[in-house]
Amino acid sequence: MTTGTKNIDKVAIVGGTHGNEFSGIYLLRKWQQQTADITRGSFTTQTVFANPQAFDANKRYLDCDMNRQFGVADLANPDLANYEQSRAKAINAQLGPKGEAKTDFIIDLHNTTSNMGPSLILLQQDSFNRQLGAYVKAKMPEAVIVLEDEVSVTEHHFLCSIADQGVIVEVGPQPQSVIRQDVLDWMDTMTGHILDFVDLHNRNAVPVLPATFDAYKYHETLKLPEDENGERIGMVHRNVQDADFTVLRHGDPIFTLFDGSVITWDGDYEAYPHFINEAAYYDNNLAMSLAKKVTVTV
Amino acid sequence: MTTGTKNIDKVAIVGGTHGNEFSGIYLLRKWQQQTADITRGSFTTQTVFANPQAFDANKRYLDCDMNRQFGVADLANPDLANYEQSRAKAINAQLGPKGEAKTDFIIDLHNTTSNMGPSLILLQQDSFNRQLGAYVKAKMPEAVIVLEDEVSVTEHHFLCSIADQGVIVEVGPQPQSVIRQDVLDWMDTMTGHILDFVDLHNRNAVPVLPATFDAYKYHETLKLPEDENGERIGMVHRNVQDADFTVLRHGDPIFTLFDGSVITWDGDYEAYPHFINEAAYYDNNLAMSLAKKVTVTV
Repeated sequence: MTTGTKNIDKVAIVGGTHGNEFSGIYLLRKWQQQTADITRGSFTTQTVFANPQAFDANKRYLDCDMNRQFGVADLANPDLANYEQSRAKAINAQLGPKGEAKTDFIIDLHNTTSNMGPSLILLQQDSFNRQLGAYVKAKMPEAVIVLEDEVSVTEHHFLCSIADQGVIVEVGPQPQSVIRQDVLDWMDTMTGHILDFVDLHNRNAVPVLPATFDAYKYHETLKLPEDENGERIGMVHRNVQDADFTVLRHGDPIFTLFDGSVITWDGDYEAYPHFINEAAYYDNNLAMSLAKKVTVTV
Repeated sequence: MTTGTKNIDKVAIVGGTHGNEFSGIYLLRKWQQQTADITRGSFTTQTVFANPQAFDANKRYLDCDMNRQFGVADLANPDLANYEQSRAKAINAQLGPKGEAKTDFIIDLHNTTSNMGPSLILLQQDSFNRQLGAYVKAKMPEAVIVLEDEVSVTEHHFLCSIADQGVIVEVGPQPQSVIRQDVLDWMDTMTGHILDFVDLHNRNAVPVLPATFDAYKYHETLKLPEDENGERIGMVHRNVQDADFTVLRHGDPIFTLFDGSVITWDGDYEAYPHFINEAAYYDNNLAMSLAKKVTVTV
């Protein structure tokens, strides 16, 4: 069985792209002591601590969200010079440059306050990613595969889009600035399976995989209820809280206003909410992402 | 039945003492619209937004933890002049001054990232507080009563220690900078029961209460595992995570080091952990508080 894409020679594992998402940061420290955990025979692995200053400040970022600074035009724009924009350019020089990157595959480690469990976010549905998703699901049944392939990899602004192949490991629920063992262990395990898959891929030794698997394809983002001045006037309904990847249908309660009234969802499809009530998204008053459930053919 | 203490004429409800603990802040906004919720016949109620600048910055505090700035000597020290120290003096002028406060009773609203449910923290075991605890437990069986009466009210550095009577309503689990409906509803409900009790107390109409109730008396604080340089080398064991108020006995796992080894608890009493893995306590590398279970006689 072959994955139909080129060999992966250079892998980078990135932690601390957001300074208050601790699992990746502490896993990097662990792996620096226990290098065997991230070493495989067929490729080299380097680790990158993306936003050390935000970690020191115990914040997601100092100036702007680093994981939105990797658009091609932004990377080329010298006027974008704040801390995260500068770090983005430095990381692009280290791992990229985007479009002709020296790194073949990037794993970017993230936490969410949402109840998403161990989620693997894929940016494209090529053969490599379809097989990777199937492999991780087979090894780790509690894993959830999320597709954010609504634009091409090049058009994405994520750090992991520097390389031709990149994924986000997104694990929660974990409050910002906390280390939960269950969440750390999930991230450690999922990263190990990903590295195993890359090694099998390189050696043309990927085992027979299930023919299909379920995934959640990003569709839209919902805002928290606001008044005419943009002030929050409500919150995620208690039925939806923690119910990431549980179906939401037309007429289901979705928000509770602070005056006690309930807002129902008026969409016309079966939606699968995720990133529900993610703390970091309050900056933009976002309530959740909605996905459609799809079947991926491997 | 009488509670044996003087009438409560002036009540203050304080929210946002920590700027990223959102339940109290949004409840204050709600109550400004729905004043009947916090109005009772026998006393006046005012609301105080303690740390608006920290809320605007989406942080616990700008310069220092406001809820440690209400020691008598600190309030009198003009050299303590940063933002929270200044706000503390302003709030002491507004509600106090401590020792001869114009406010009779303060309810200070807090969130924790720990799985403490709706907790009521009492600072003393006088007749008023014992009856208050019994009343809240009777009305709200899921409530937990915590005693932090290891020092006198005057010696406490908490905001609510300005008045002769003050309590902390501490509700979680809630990530910092998030509004969870379940947590908000718990805080709303508990505050309502407290106000009801004060009204009954004033009218000598407190109903017959259970003769005793269980409470958790603060005993000690445990730090996260550190190396000789003060760097974190471990985390709360997964068995203890979210197990607030579940008994911990000598020999039980309590921490997991990043190298995989497990640390057990070596204490010689039945301990009840709480504030387990509270995000805000990472500043001081604190892992949890330990309490002893006690029976309070009403």
